[in-house]
Amino acid sequence: MKAMNPVQQKFSRRARVATGGAVLAAVALSGFGAVSANASAPATTSAAATSAAAVPDQATTASTHLTIDAATKAAQAALDAAEKENQRVTVAVVDRNGNTIVTLRGDGAGPQSYESAERKAFTAAAWNAPTSQLAERLQQTPNLKDIPGTLFLAGGVPVTAEKAPIAGIGVAGAPSGALDEKFAQTGANAVAR
Amino acid sequence: MKAMNPVQQKFSRRARVATGGAVLAAVALSGFGAVSANASAPATTSAAATSAAAVPDQATTASTHLTIDAATKAAQAALDAAEKENQRVTVAVVDRNGNTIVTLRGDGAGPQSYESAERKAFTAAAWNAPTSQLAERLQQTPNLKDIPGTLFLAGGVPVTAEKAPIAGIGVAGAPSGALDEKFAQTGANAVAR
Amino acid sequence: MKAMNPVQQKFSRRARVATGGAVLAAVALSGFGAVSANASAPATTSAAATSAAAVPDQATTASTHLTIDAATKAAQAALDAAEKENQRVTVAVVDRNGNTIVTLRGDGAGPQSYESAERKAFTAAAWNAPTSQLAERLQQTPNLKDIPGTLFLAGGVPVTAEKAPIAGIGVAGAPSGALDEKFAQTGANAVAR
Amino acid sequence: MKAMNPVQQKFSRRARVATGGAVLAAVALSGFGAVSANASAPATTSAAATSAAAVPDQATTASTHLTIDAATKAAQAALDAAEKENQRVTVAVVDRNGNTIVTLRGDGAGPQSYESAERKAFTAAAWNAPTSQLAERLQQTPNLKDIPGTLFLAGGVPVTAEKAPIAGIGVAGAPSGALDEKFAQTGANAVAR
Amino acid sequence: MKAMNPVQQKFSRRARVATGGAVLAAVALSGFGAVSANASAPATTSAAATSAAAVPDQATTASTHLTIDAATKAAQAALDAAEKENQRVTVAVVDRNGNTIVTLRGDGAGPQSYESAERKAFTAAAWNAPTSQLAERLQQTPNLKDIPGTLFLAGGVPVTAEKAPIAGIGVAGAPSGALDEKFAQTGANAVAR
Amino acid sequence: MKAMNPVQQKFSRRARVATGGAVLAAVALSGFGAVSANASAPATTSAAATSAAAVPDQATTASTHLTIDAATKAAQAALDAAEKENQRVTVAVVDRNGNTIVTLRGDGAGPQSYESAERKAFTAAAWNAPTSQLAERLQQTPNLKDIPGTLFLAGGVPVTAEKAPIAGIGVAGAPSGALDEKFAQTGANAVAR
Amino acid sequence: MKAMNPVQQKFSRRARVATGGAVLAAVALSGFGAVSANASAPATTSAAATSAAAVPDQATTASTHLTIDAATKAAQAALDAAEKENQRVTVAVVDRNGNTIVTLRGDGAGPQSYESAERKAFTAAAWNAPTSQLAERLQQTPNLKDIPGTLFLAGGVPVTAEKAPIAGIGVAGAPSGALDEKFAQTGANAVAR
Amino acid sequence: MKAMNPVQQKFSRRARVATGGAVLAAVALSGFGAVSANASAPATTSAAATSAAAVPDQATTASTHLTIDAATKAAQAALDAAEKENQRVTVAVVDRNGNTIVTLRGDGAGPQSYESAERKAFTAAAWNAPTSQLAERLQQTPNLKDIPGTLFLAGGVPVTAEKAPIAGIGVAGAPSGALDEKFAQTGANAVAR
Repeated sequence: MKAMNPVQQKFSRRARVATGGAVLAAVALSGFGAVSANASAPATTSAAATSAAAVPDQATTASTHLTIDAATKAAQAALDAAEKENQRVTVAVVDRNGNTIVTLRGDGAGPQSYESAERKAFTAAAWNAPTSQLAERLQQTPNLKDIPGTLFLAGGVPVTAEKAPIAGIGVAGAPSGALDEKFAQTGANAVAR
Repeated sequence: MKAMNPVQQKFSRRARVATGGAVLAAVALSGFGAVSANASAPATTSAAATSAAAVPDQATTASTHLTIDAATKAAQAALDAAEKENQRVTVAVVDRNGNTIVTLRGDGAGPQSYESAERKAFTAAAWNAPTSQLAERLQQTPNLKDIPGTLFLAGGVPVTAEKAPIAGIGVAGAPSGALDEKFAQTGANAVAR
Repeated sequence: MKAMNPVQQKFSRRARVATGGAVLAAVALSGFGAVSANASAPATTSAAATSAAAVPDQATTASTHLTIDAATKAAQAALDAAEKENQRVTVAVVDRNGNTIVTLRGDGAGPQSYESAERKAFTAAAWNAPTSQLAERLQQTPNLKDIPGTLFLAGGVPVTAEKAPIAGIGVAGAPSGALDEKFAQTGANAVAR
Repeated sequence: MKAMNPVQQKFSRRARVATGGAVLAAVALSGFGAVSANASAPATTSAAATSAAAVPDQATTASTHLTIDAATKAAQAALDAAEKENQRVTVAVVDRNGNTIVTLRGDGAGPQSYESAERKAFTAAAWNAPTSQLAERLQQTPNLKDIPGTLFLAGGVPVTAEKAPIAGIGVAGAPSGALDEKFAQTGANAVAR
Repeated sequence: MKAMNPVQQKFSRRARVATGGAVLAAVALSGFGAVSANASAPATTSAAATSAAAVPDQATTASTHLTIDAATKAAQAALDAAEKENQRVTVAVVDRNGNTIVTLRGDGAGPQSYESAERKAFTAAAWNAPTSQLAERLQQTPNLKDIPGTLFLAGGVPVTAEKAPIAGIGVAGAPSGALDEKFAQTGANAVAR
Repeated sequence: MKAMNPVQQKFSRRARVATGGAVLAAVALSGFGAVSANASAPATTSAAATSAAAVPDQATTASTHLTIDAATKAAQAALDAAEKENQRVTVAVVDRNGNTIVTLRGDGAGPQSYESAERKAFTAAAWNAPTSQLAERLQQTPNLKDIPGTLFLAGGVPVTAEKAPIAGIGVAGAPSGALDEKFAQTGANAVAR
Repeated sequence: MKAMNPVQQKFSRRARVATGGAVLAAVALSGFGAVSANASAPATTSAAATSAAAVPDQATTASTHLTIDAATKAAQAALDAAEKENQRVTVAVVDRNGNTIVTLRGDGAGPQSYESAERKAFTAAAWNAPTSQLAERLQQTPNLKDIPGTLFLAGGVPVTAEKAPIAGIGVAGAPSGALDEKFAQTGANAVAR
Repeated sequence: MKAMNPVQQKFSRRARVATGGAVLAAVALSGFGAVSANASAPATTSAAATSAAAVPDQATTASTHLTIDAATKAAQAALDAAEKENQRVTVAVVDRNGNTIVTLRGDGAGPQSYESAERKAFTAAAWNAPTSQLAERLQQTPNLKDIPGTLFLAGGVPVTAEKAPIAGIGVAGAPSGALDEKFAQTGANAVAR
């Protein structure tokens, strides 16, 4: 219907440029062989596969995530660090899309710690900085803290790949945010080189 | 059961294997040059970058997304199709993580259409099938429809890459779900080969 | 039952006066021919149309909205402006009733950006001023920011018709609110004369 | 930046066509004189008005609403009808955008009646039919009732202008839905010709 | 089972003492004849009435409410006052239990006004003071404003009977809280002696 | 402003008629002496009392409530009955306005029992019948159960005064709804004559 | 880092060490005889019991709770103390897991008091200190108050066993937080030695 | 104030009886030495400890929990089992209080799986049976599934100690509930004898 649609033009052009962003990369499709081999997309019937729209490479980008194994390893390391100091905390790992990947509610952690840990992780992943630093920024922009899902308390640290944030680790429940953040950093270090 | 710390072993092994799933692929890190070049991770100070944990390749996977350009193109195509038949609808595109990417509330679309479109898109992306097919599955498993965020009404179609779902397109507001789904499919086709 | 009901009296009087407000105007009913022609109110059966109460002109007012085409154009312009500066943002357009009309989650935009963009747009549409200005008003009335749905951070601008607000455009995700607001203004300008 | 942008082309073309839908009409801008005269858009400074984007006619449509006076008259008529039969009910009027315009919680109305009345009104406005009829449609499409905000119980009726829905009236609290709907219809009739 | 149960003792004693509070009074049961006469408790079958537990006078207290007629009168008076000054506002009346009794969304009132009006009314009814006064109390107790459902902005006034609060009226949408509160006070005065 | 306002006329007339409903009665104002004596409406300053609107008798009605002592007695009796049969349950008492008055989470009661008990109590208070009976009504009107806040499971019983509902008692956690309802009835009986 | 599957090692080791925390103790299993004797786990069929996984002692810890009898006693004492001073309040008891155990909405307590009481109790239980003390800590760490579920207003006190918090008691509705806290402390004292 | 208070009498009596229920046991206080030694209750000052009410043994019961180590082991085992069959799932462990203890969102698990897993675990822990069995019970009591937080889909299994439920494990994301439940059972078995 629309000849010479500039949106479509732009669309093609964009596909040839790495879109950057939160560690976005053109997906190497050759890597997908295994995916189609194990045929494990949940509940896909072949009929559905036929009717579903399959998109070409240039219409897609990829975002980088911690594997669940790496995220669990990080969370466990943070929890271990806290327990070694007899602190009772909850640990959460949130991805760059804001989804929680792992939670570990430590033995005896306070009831406020679960959602606090998730929000600290979210906040660190959103702005790619430790929440202790982010809390200081409120002096200039106090209303940042009104953004839903955030918590500007020390205890969250980002995890990065190529300097871009791919996840956040949040710890809550220790007597001070500085302690929480130390444990979170231990978790982050556990998956770093 | 697992001598020699299988978690650590598994961690390494997994990194060499495409983890499959929702179009997961090992990220080609060379593609990231542009990312670090434009340095645009929000609010990253060099100090933060230093303290942030940078993870090695084997700790990460990648998930495939429609670019915003492709998603907008799909949504616009669905809306155009509806308007050509004088139907007033809302269109939504949701990614495989369940996040809404694009919404277009058409002129005169009913108040129920916005959230309906999002939920249809979510449902199609979750099970990789048109919602008209999924509604039929309720005969066997009626409680599927109690899962939060879902809506088992015709009008949602998945978008796939290599047979795995990467997004869903949902349309709501036309007099029948069949019409809604026709428009959604038009949207999906617009980004397919 | 109630002879000489002053409410009814008032009712008639009001109908002859333009009610002003959010660009309210007496509807030119001649414009509705096309509407009834395409008969596309969803799911209306003729029986339903018969039983439904049809109101006379003087009982109605009209509120002005951006068309979905204009709203999409504005959102796309804001996103393009951000991408040209390598910023990853989400853009939202909200109408004067507080309903979201368009959202575009840009590639790589942070997880906090989606709801932030909607709230900035809502805030600008509610008070008919850029959110950077509104944030300054908090010095006098700090509790304004406790109103549900608002966010007093730069990045939202109103769209007006005849000096009254008809929509708001919100952008979130750039390193500063000033940048966000520049992109939002670019979007607003795209639909202005 | 984009010469020959088809979106812009379409944009202009659309402006000349009545967009139909929920009683959408091209706004007769001459009606706005009074609006700018009373200058009462909340909190607009002239500076803000300057920076705000003012859109041309072709970028806007108008949606029809009951005036608050008409909506109150309808709600009061429904409540009076219920009280005349010694029924204790809540009445709600919802506009076509899904926003509640008027609520009247009658003396002694049950605690379930308030939200029920709003949802019945919403449902009637969404599908332009009495909720008693809509409840019957569930036999064919049972999952319609999973759409958020709806309630498929008798007691809601639409209000229309030129056969398109512009509002819904919902009543809840009487011993039967049939009674509720009779009162709602009385309310709707009160604003009809 | 429990002879000499002090709770039961206390129970009887308390019944002879007016419990005070939010205009609590021993109910004059003779006033109930009309109630049982019209037999209109929704959906009560005689079987149900038999099995239901009927409590003696001393187990009950009564709380005072505005009639819906009085509440509507107050809300309408507030809205009229605003319209006379060309202000577009929403008015809400909330009872002492925190339930909304009446809402009137004025023509052209901003999207933030609806929930603001309800919260101002709630706040005034909770502390029995105008919200303009209550906002000043935050200097001493700033965290009062974190109580769910409250809004400490001018525009809410209490309605009292015998000096105890029985309702609150909230107005929102005018350019200043002082204006909002003037209209709310007009509404409150309309039902006062 | 409005001479001969029929609303005001109606207003006066209504005040002389018992408004019936959920045990509404004209308040015997003489009972309020104690109230004004203890002057304990929270945070009332004399200035506030002066500015607050005080309404005349004819503008008010009264609703009947269980005293907290009676409600606690009922809840305790229900819990005792359950414990005597070694059942672990939660008990809730909800007033006719839908507000929870008392909750007692029994030792070892399951996590689903708390909100279940509240909803059963709400449902019984709303329709003035045991929830076991109400569940049967769903055969005719299945969508009743979609009303927010309700739960159509045996275990809730109404408490009445003069045949009108003034509260509901809900019990949840026993192996069967019949058991739950037996305990709830024991609670209701404890405050009945 | 951890040769020889430290997770499994740790698992065993931990079981022999009291895990500390919120009054965690190795459970004396001999105490369970009565439990299995009365066989009252809700809805357990023997088949289910067979398939259910039964864990060994070393995989479990125990957390300490107030009995419902003790919690009710505390709440009643707090309410009695308030009533003796003619104050109308709501009382809540929350356990260390954040779950509400008891609520008593006093006669005439304001609508804001219910959720306030719960949040004060939650806050005291979370940080094991009276909320009056905790409110002072906000001077150093103001964003603590953004943690969901908390309220930093005087009126909450912790209940401890062996110096660890096991519950919180919250009171709200009196004219000052100091009064609320006095009543809460009376409640806490009622269950202390 | 109250001599011979039966509540207090009952209180003492109860303390000598194991309260049964969800694995409730009298706490062996000698196990607490370590707790007070490490003094790690968050943010407890000695002043606070002094003012806090310390309760005697007879006022407390204990509930049994999986240690975080055991819960993590179970969740990991369930995830491993799923990955071995190339299924992408989320695993959740919920305690008997309904709190989530561990979540592991597997690589590529669908967006619906996270909350589904939590709800399946909640449901299994609440009724102490596999959710596949519980789904069958809906034939008799269909409205059980309306209880908030539940999901009656196969994939949840209880974890018990002495035949009473102490946790639930939920798995979601595989093509069938039967598969989900197999993986969940593997997780439960991993912590059983």
